[in-house]
Amino acid sequence: MINGVSASLAEVLDGRWAHIRQAVRDELGAEFVTVPGETGDQARERVSRLIRALPTDVGVAAAFPAAFGGSDDPGGSTVAAEMLAQVDLSLMVKAGVQWGLFGGAVVALGTARHHEAYLRDIISADLMGCFAMTETGHGSDVQQLRTMCVFDEEAGHFILNTPHEAARKDYIGNAARDGRMAVVFAQLITGGKSYGVHAWLVPIRDADGNPVPGVTIGDAGPKAGLLGVDNGRLTFDHVIVPRDMLLDRYGQVAPDGTYTSTIENDTRRFFTMLGTLVRGRVTVGAAASAATRNALTIAVRYGESRRQFTAPGADREIALNDYLAHQRKLLPAVARAYAYAFAQEELAVTMSEVFALTEPDEHRQRELESRAAGLKAMQTWNATRTIQMCREACGGAGYLAENRLPGLKADTDVFTTFEGDNTVLLQLVAKGLLTGYRDAFGSLDGWGRATFVAEQVTEMVLERTAARSLIQRLVSAVPGRDEEVAVTDRGWHLSVFEDREKHLLESVIRRLRGGAATKKDRPFDIFNDVQDHVLATAKAHIDRITLEAFVAGIERSGDPSARALLSKVCDLYALTVIEADKGWFLEHGRLTPARSKAVTAVINDLLRDLRPHMRTLVDAFAIPDEWLNAAILREEPARQDAMAKEDDAVRATPTD
Amino acid sequence: MINGVSASLAEVLDGRWAHIRQAVRDELGAEFVTVPGETGDQARERVSRLIRALPTDVGVAAAFPAAFGGSDDPGGSTVAAEMLAQVDLSLMVKAGVQWGLFGGAVVALGTARHHEAYLRDIISADLMGCFAMTETGHGSDVQQLRTMCVFDEEAGHFILNTPHEAARKDYIGNAARDGRMAVVFAQLITGGKSYGVHAWLVPIRDADGNPVPGVTIGDAGPKAGLLGVDNGRLTFDHVIVPRDMLLDRYGQVAPDGTYTSTIENDTRRFFTMLGTLVRGRVTVGAAASAATRNALTIAVRYGESRRQFTAPGADREIALNDYLAHQRKLLPAVARAYAYAFAQEELAVTMSEVFALTEPDEHRQRELESRAAGLKAMQTWNATRTIQMCREACGGAGYLAENRLPGLKADTDVFTTFEGDNTVLLQLVAKGLLTGYRDAFGSLDGWGRATFVAEQVTEMVLERTAARSLIQRLVSAVPGRDEEVAVTDRGWHLSVFEDREKHLLESVIRRLRGGAATKKDRPFDIFNDVQDHVLATAKAHIDRITLEAFVAGIERSGDPSARALLSKVCDLYALTVIEADKGWFLEHGRLTPARSKAVTAVINDLLRDLRPHMRTLVDAFAIPDEWLNAAILREEPARQDAMAKEDDAVRATPTD
Repeated sequence: MINGVSASLAEVLDGRWAHIRQAVRDELGAEFVTVPGETGDQARERVSRLIRALPTDVGVAAAFPAAFGGSDDPGGSTVAAEMLAQVDLSLMVKAGVQWGLFGGAVVALGTARHHEAYLRDIISADLMGCFAMTETGHGSDVQQLRTMCVFDEEAGHFILNTPHEAARKDYIGNAARDGRMAVVFAQLITGGKSYGVHAWLVPIRDADGNPVPGVTIGDAGPKAGLLGVDNGRLTFDHVIVPRDMLLDRYGQVAPDGTYTSTIENDTRRFFTMLGTLVRGRVTVGAAASAATRNALTIAVRYGESRRQFTAPGADREIALNDYLAHQRKLLPAVARAYAYAFAQEELAVTMSEVFALTEPDEHRQRELESRAAGLKAMQTWNATRTIQMCREACGGAGYLAENRLPGLKADTDVFTTFEGDNTVLLQLVAKGLLTGYRDAFGSLDGWGRATFVAEQVTEMVLERTAARSLIQRLVSAVPGRDEEVAVTDRGWHLSVFEDREKHLLESVIRRLRGGAATKKDRPFDIFNDVQDHVLATAKAHIDRITLEAFVAGIERSGDPSARALLSKVCDLYALTVIEADKGWFLEHGRLTPARSKAVTAVINDLLRDLRPHMRTLVDAFAIPDEWLNAAILREEPARQDAMAKEDDAVRATPTD
Repeated sequence: MINGVSASLAEVLDGRWAHIRQAVRDELGAEFVTVPGETGDQARERVSRLIRALPTDVGVAAAFPAAFGGSDDPGGSTVAAEMLAQVDLSLMVKAGVQWGLFGGAVVALGTARHHEAYLRDIISADLMGCFAMTETGHGSDVQQLRTMCVFDEEAGHFILNTPHEAARKDYIGNAARDGRMAVVFAQLITGGKSYGVHAWLVPIRDADGNPVPGVTIGDAGPKAGLLGVDNGRLTFDHVIVPRDMLLDRYGQVAPDGTYTSTIENDTRRFFTMLGTLVRGRVTVGAAASAATRNALTIAVRYGESRRQFTAPGADREIALNDYLAHQRKLLPAVARAYAYAFAQEELAVTMSEVFALTEPDEHRQRELESRAAGLKAMQTWNATRTIQMCREACGGAGYLAENRLPGLKADTDVFTTFEGDNTVLLQLVAKGLLTGYRDAFGSLDGWGRATFVAEQVTEMVLERTAARSLIQRLVSAVPGRDEEVAVTDRGWHLSVFEDREKHLLESVIRRLRGGAATKKDRPFDIFNDVQDHVLATAKAHIDRITLEAFVAGIERSGDPSARALLSKVCDLYALTVIEADKGWFLEHGRLTPARSKAVTAVINDLLRDLRPHMRTLVDAFAIPDEWLNAAILREEPARQDAMAKEDDAVRATPTD
C-alpha cells in the first residue's frame, strides 16, 4: 500500500516512537477494531474484555516505572494511546482512564507504599480503577470541589463525604461497571482547617463487584459516543478511609492530625499536583488528531473513487477529488493533520525530557503544561470540525455507521470538553505567556483571583520551539518589505505568525493595564472584557509553535521528494491559517488587499499542485485497512467499474 | 413561562401559521418526545407506532387536497413538520417520508386515478410508502440514475430492473421495516428509446410485510442518528409494473408504447418534475432551524443557572452567561436563529403563493426552488455548527443523552447532505442568479453540460424580497460615504449585504467569460476554477435575503419593546455576518481597517446590551419544557441553591 514517497513521509510522521507505532499496527488485528451499531451493554462488555487482552508490549502502560513492569517512557505511552485511538476510541479512553489517570495518579501523587501495593495489579488490569475528580457542580474549577475528607484524630482515619448532589463525582470512567478502586479528590480537613484538594485511594466495589458500604454508584447513562466506556457517578456517605490511603507525596497527615507539606501555599501545591498529570492532556490531543487522520484517509480515498456529474466531452463522471470545492475542504485539512502530527511529536518529546529531569525545572514544566493545554484544545476542535467535514464529504454514506465516520465523530466529540474545557485551556495558555502573571502566581488557575494581576504583567515572552537556529535563519532572511517576498517564502510565514502572536499579546497586556487603572471597582470586568483577545492570543501562539514544529519536521526527512512535497503541504498549512485570519492581518496593516488576494490565488494553485498527491499524503498516515473498517472503501471502486463497463457497452451499441 | 416581551416576540415568530404551531404544542405531549438511549429496534418500533398516533389536526398532512382530507395548505404542512422536529426528529423525518416525499410525489407526479386509489390510505398512514430516488451510485446527479424501467409493448407492462449494485436504491426511508409501496424513479425506456427519469408506484411488501417477488429489501443499518427511521435498500429483479402505475402527469406511455409529454426536452421535463417536490427542501431547512432553537434554549438556560469560578470579592461563582466568551458563542447564534426563522417564514409564504397560482409562473417557481435550496443549505449547516457549539457550551453535561443535545446533533447531521448535498445546492442557487444560464437551460442541474454556458451569461439580477419599499427607503437613506454612517445603521447593513452579493456575482460572470475564451479545450475547468467564487456568491445571496426577511419581520411586531429588542438582535446578526467576512470587505475596500475594528467593538457592546435579555430571547421560541426534555434544566438550579446555602453556612461560621 505504501509506495516510495508515502513510505518516506510515514517515516518522518512516525518519528521517535516509530517502534511503538509499528508494534501496535502489527499486534492489534481486526478483533480490536470498533464495532459499529453495538448497544451500550455490548460495547461495554467488549471493551472491558479487550482491555485485558491488549498485548503488554504495545506500550499503553509504558509510562510506569521499570521496577513494576513499565518502561519509564511517558512519551511512548501517549504514542501507544494515540495509535489505539485509530483502532477504537472507547478502548483508548478506557486504557487512558486505567493506566493514565488512575494508574498515573497513583504513581505521581502516591509514595512507595502505594506503588508497592498496587502498581503491578494496575498494570495487569487486575485492579481496575477510576479517577474521581470532576463533580457534577465543578468540572473546570476543580479547586472548588465540594467533596470533603476530614481527618478524625481520635479514630486515626479520614471520613470521606459527599455533602449534596452537586458534590457527587460525575462522568467518572470505569465507575459504572468495572472499577474496584478510585483515586478520589476532595478537600482535606484536619484539625478544623482546610488544606485544599488532595487525593485518596478508596475501594468502591468488593471482590464480587458490589458497591462497598457507604458508596453509591450510579450510571451516567447513554452518551453521544464512547459507548464502550462505563462512565458513572460516585457518592460517598461518611466512608472511612484509612490514613495511609492518602496519596501523600505532596502533603502528609501525621497520626495526630498534623499536616505537613514541602509546598506551603495551598493553591500552588494543588497545581503542582495537577501538573504531574499533564500526560492526560497530551494523550487526548494526540488521540484527537489520530482519529482525524482516520477520517481524512476515508474521505480522501472515497473522493478518489467516487464520481458524480459528467464533464463535457468526458466518458466518465468526475471524481470528487477533482472538484475545487472538494479540494478546498480536504487538502487544507490534510495539511493541518501534518502540522499537528509534527507539533504533537514535539510535545511528546518535550514531555519525555521534562519528566526525565532529575532536578525539577519549573519554567520548562510550565511551558509543557501550557503547550499541552493549547495543543489539546486546538487539536480536539480541529478533530470535531474536520471529522464533520469528512462525514459530509462522503455524502449520505458518511452518515452510515458501516462507514466509520459517525463513530469517529461521536467518540471524539467529548474531547473538546474533557481533560479541560477548551475555552478554559486557552486562557491558561495565554496566562502562561504573561511572565508577570506567571511569576506572581505560580499556577495556571482561573482568572480573577486578585485585582492586581494586570499590574504585575510587565513583559511577554516569545520563545521559539524546535529547530531554533533554522527558524531564526529563515526569519532573518526575509527582506524588510513584505511586498518583495513571495507568499510562499517560509521565513515570511514564520515572521507573520510570530508577529501576530506578539501583537495580540501586547494588546492584551495594554488592555489589562488600562482596565486595572479604570475598572478597580469591577475586577471581574478587567479580565472579562479582554477574554476574546485572550483566546485569540492563545490560538495565535499555538499556530506559531505548530508551524515551527512543521518546519523542523521537514528537515528530518532524508528523501528529497518527500521534503519537496512536505514543503508544499507546509505552504498550504501556513497560507490557509493566514487566509482564515486575513481580516486581522488586513485590519492591522500586515497584508495589503492585493497581497491578501494573492494568498488566496496561491492556495488555489497549491490545491492543483497537490491534487495528484492526495492519496499519497493519506497513505503516509499508515493506517491499516482493517483499522479503517469503512464499507465504502471496500465497495465503491467495484461499483464504479460496473458503471464504467455499463457505459462502455452503451457506447458500443449502435443507436437507431 | 412566557412574559410580556417574550410573548410579543413569540407572536412575531409564530407568524402566519401560529394556529398550527399552537395546535402542535397543545396536542403533542410527553409521550411523543424522543427517548434518549434507545436501541435501534426500540426507536423504530416507537416511531412507527407514534406516526399512526399523530393527531390528524396538527397539520403534517395539510398539504394534501381537501377532497381527500387534507387542507391544500403546503405552507402549513412544512410548519407542522418543523414543530415535530422539536419533539422528535425521527418522527419528523418519518412523517416527511410518508406524507411529504411519498404522498407528495403521488399528488404531484400522479394523476386522478392514483389520487383516488391511494391518497386516503396514505394520509391515514394505513399505506406506508417510500420515495425511492437515490441510488448507491447516484445521489446528487439523479438524472443519471441507473435503474431501468422498460416498457414491453407485447405484454403491455413495464419491467423494472436494477442492473448492478451501484443502481440499488439506498438510504430509502420506510424501506427497511414499514413501507408497503414505493415511488421508484428510473430511466423510462419504450420503443428502444430512453426518455429520462420518471416515477412509478411499485408494491414492495405484501399484506404480511414480506417483500414481494423480485424485490430484495436490505437495511441501511446503524446510522449516526435518526434511529427511529428505517432506512433501507431496494433492489428490483425484472419486476413487472403495470402500465397504469407510471405516475404520468408529466409523461405518458400509451398501450402501444408511444411516449407523449407536454414538455419536449427530457432534462427540462425531469427538472419540472423535481420542482414540484420542492417542499421537501423547504421542510428540511425549517426542521434544522427548529432543532437548533431547542439546542439554544437548553444552552442559554443552562448558562443562566450554571456557575463556575469565583469573581474577586463576589459571594457566588460567575454564571456562564456572564462570560464574554460565552456570550460570543451563544448570542450571535440566537441572532441567527431569529434571522433564519424570519427567512423561513417568508419562504413558506412564497411557496404557498406559488403553489396557489392557477397559471404556472416559471420565474417565481425558479426563484422558489433557488431560495429553498439556499436556505436549506445555510440553515442545515448552521444547525450542525450551532448545536455542536451548544453541546460544548454545556460542558460534559452536553455529552450525556439525558441532556438532549447529543440526539439533536446526531439526528440533524444528515440534513447537510440529504434532500440535496449542501455544496451542490449552493451551486444551484448561484446558477439561479445568472439569467443567461437560467434562460438557456431552464433547469438548475449540474455544471458543465455545455461549454458555451459562460458566454450566455449576460446579466445578473438582484431581486429584493419582502418589504421591498421599506428596504429601498432604508438603503436610499444611507449617505454616500460609509464613514459618516453608524455601523448600526440598518440601511448600511442592507447596502453592504447587497453590494457584496452584486460584486461577487459580477466577478463570477467575468471569470466565467474569461474562462470561456481561454479554456475552450478544458470545458470542465471553466466552471471548476470558479467554484469557490460560486459558493461564496450563493452564500452572500442567502445572507442578503435573510437580512431582508429579518428587517421585514421586525415591522410585523406591534409591541415597541419587542421591536426595540428585535432591532438590536438584527444589528447583532448583520454585524456578525460582516465580521465573519471582514477579510473580504477589507480586501475590496468596503471597510477601512478602523471601521472593521469598530464593527467588532460594537458587537461586544451589543453582547453587553443583550446579556440581560438572553433568557427572554429563547423563551420566545416557545418550546414546551417537556419537549426540551433536558435533565440539566430540571436539576442544575437546585444544585446551585444547595451550594449557595453551603457557602452561606461556611461564611456564617466563625473560624479560628
